[in-house]
Amino acid sequence: MSIEQLRTLRYEHLEPLAIGAGILGTGGGGSPYLNKIFVAEIMKSGIEVPVVQASELEDDALVAPTGGVGAPTVGVERLKQGEELVRALRAVEKYTGKRATHMISAEIGGGNSISPVIVALQAGLPLVDGDGMGRAFPEMQMDTFSIYGVRPTPVGVSDVRGHVAVFDEISSGHDVERYVRNLTIQMGGGAALTGPLMTGAEIRRTAVRGTLSFAVRLGEEVMAARKAHRDPVEAASEMSGGQLLMTGKITDVDRRFVAGFARGHLKLAGTNAYEGHDYAIDFQNENLVLRDEAGAVLCSVPDLICIVDAETAEPISTETLRYGLRVAVIGIPAPHLIATPEALEVVGPAAFGYPDVEYRPLEGEYGGKLAELVRTTA
Amino acid sequence: MSIEQLRTLRYEHLEPLAIGAGILGTGGGGSPYLNKIFVAEIMKSGIEVPVVQASELEDDALVAPTGGVGAPTVGVERLKQGEELVRALRAVEKYTGKRATHMISAEIGGGNSISPVIVALQAGLPLVDGDGMGRAFPEMQMDTFSIYGVRPTPVGVSDVRGHVAVFDEISSGHDVERYVRNLTIQMGGGAALTGPLMTGAEIRRTAVRGTLSFAVRLGEEVMAARKAHRDPVEAASEMSGGQLLMTGKITDVDRRFVAGFARGHLKLAGTNAYEGHDYAIDFQNENLVLRDEAGAVLCSVPDLICIVDAETAEPISTETLRYGLRVAVIGIPAPHLIATPEALEVVGPAAFGYPDVEYRPLEGEYGGKLAELVRTTA
Repeated sequence: MSIEQLRTLRYEHLEPLAIGAGILGTGGGGSPYLNKIFVAEIMKSGIEVPVVQASELEDDALVAPTGGVGAPTVGVERLKQGEELVRALRAVEKYTGKRATHMISAEIGGGNSISPVIVALQAGLPLVDGDGMGRAFPEMQMDTFSIYGVRPTPVGVSDVRGHVAVFDEISSGHDVERYVRNLTIQMGGGAALTGPLMTGAEIRRTAVRGTLSFAVRLGEEVMAARKAHRDPVEAASEMSGGQLLMTGKITDVDRRFVAGFARGHLKLAGTNAYEGHDYAIDFQNENLVLRDEAGAVLCSVPDLICIVDAETAEPISTETLRYGLRVAVIGIPAPHLIATPEALEVVGPAAFGYPDVEYRPLEGEYGGKLAELVRTTA
Repeated sequence: MSIEQLRTLRYEHLEPLAIGAGILGTGGGGSPYLNKIFVAEIMKSGIEVPVVQASELEDDALVAPTGGVGAPTVGVERLKQGEELVRALRAVEKYTGKRATHMISAEIGGGNSISPVIVALQAGLPLVDGDGMGRAFPEMQMDTFSIYGVRPTPVGVSDVRGHVAVFDEISSGHDVERYVRNLTIQMGGGAALTGPLMTGAEIRRTAVRGTLSFAVRLGEEVMAARKAHRDPVEAASEMSGGQLLMTGKITDVDRRFVAGFARGHLKLAGTNAYEGHDYAIDFQNENLVLRDEAGAVLCSVPDLICIVDAETAEPISTETLRYGLRVAVIGIPAPHLIATPEALEVVGPAAFGYPDVEYRPLEGEYGGKLAELVRTTA
């Protein structure tokens, strides 16, 4: 398995990207599966997308983050039209009178890892290796761009019907989130978001770097373990810097569509070494808190609570959780940029409605054996 | 009293405009009083705004309709910042890369008669004598621009905090209404809307003409009657083409803020010739249906149900309705453009949730003795 940075994204990277980003999605970020099928159809003919490192960006590059907004449960039930993301980009470009030079993931987790690939193909732009979360989070103000002071507008929104909106002059990421979330609900529960256009200097200062390469290499390792009859869950834990938190059977899923999100919780009965113990996970699109039967918090945001199939390490997203699945829960330490005091104000337990949960970081380092890919903040 | 078309709007027109537009507002369109104070402060130094007739517009003129959106009850409780309307115009201009050449009222009723005057002063543009309703209506798709096929976007929205949004590529006025209404609620219940930019040819084809002059002359007539100790209610009825439907005392007001509108109904006990009879009016920002005690419909949208003070003919808007007020209710026939079969689909009783109410047009002609001002469709 390679731990090299990607220089181009090719067809054969799509399957591992879907697996790696699915794990990093912690249940959210949209379906990697549907987005993967969409770009695979284009890239199977040999089309590649150039990938550049944040360190290589010119100061005056204009990088557009992009991704789908909405509940993942809606994302799998309502097919995309295919041009939403690029239409949202064109709306921002039309409004600002500027053209983007690169695309980047708003969040590397789940299907949104592939969203910028779709636009890169449609608009003929290179990708930046990185994202704004190092995982997926449910709300827009929860990205490192916003946390570290990049102006959150102008942004463009578009839906499956071709409708377009641009928001501007909004200084608070919370307000952008509120406006866009509500519009997304009006648009049927899901929409595409692109923007704000960020300079190369801003990306270098604020992005979580190398996460596109990290997701692909993590997925490759899982696939390699499956092929070699090694334990894919153990492989995923080791390569990502994570640790196995429990294995178990899902005994209950309570999932509702509330205010534009898939919210709920699930219960798990431990298996193997965890036999005889019960666990519970709360989620808001993404998994937020893992507790044991005594109510003690074993892992919480911003650390990654990744539910995967116990045998194959295939990531299990919020919309596919169901009774009876046998799963492993891997905890991965948050990347540094989302675990600073200022970041915890926005993505710590209290920001998700858990003021009594103290964030106790997991041991280890985001990236694990692949840490050199993401430890590129120079 | 003059029945001449306005060539300029001057300070001394503001008081009559507020009265005339208040009557034509049928309860809605926002407070004429607050908007009047705002522009009077600017225009008292002698600043005038040029007024042009629709017939004088060049084909390639770009006319921007503008007005406040939201419940009138919010409009009087939450002060405007003053630049919302022009900021919404600038957002559309920035997005389209075009500059407006003229301003026009989205609705001549209520405070929105003065909204384009505010922008005209701030942006240095002339006004077009006309509007998109000949009155006020609660929803955006209810204007003649939209009814007669003008593309409803791009439009700009802005709020008191300076936030800006642009909507585009939306072919249905209902969808624009839904998106903007929801955003307005998120913005606190009120916002400014400007756009779409319309050509001179489109305005000539779709606008209700001459209504700025009509509103000013109607208000002048009410003021003249007060001064001459004639009956101002009778004067208002005659000059507007209306008829007195009842006089009475408000005995109950049920008004709620629902889905961004002031909705409710009021009960009236007849006075004078109407003594001993009870009446009821339903409203959604604007007055929709007047019924007698047997439930028979005496007047309904799109005809104008205008509640005025019984003594002074001062218009009484939805947000100032209260128990004990002695009022007269004047019915004014709808202007032709909002009473055609295609218009009734959008602004007839069924469109407001009264499928069982058959629209029976009032006798007479919108404009009455002033009809030559608004009968300028050549």
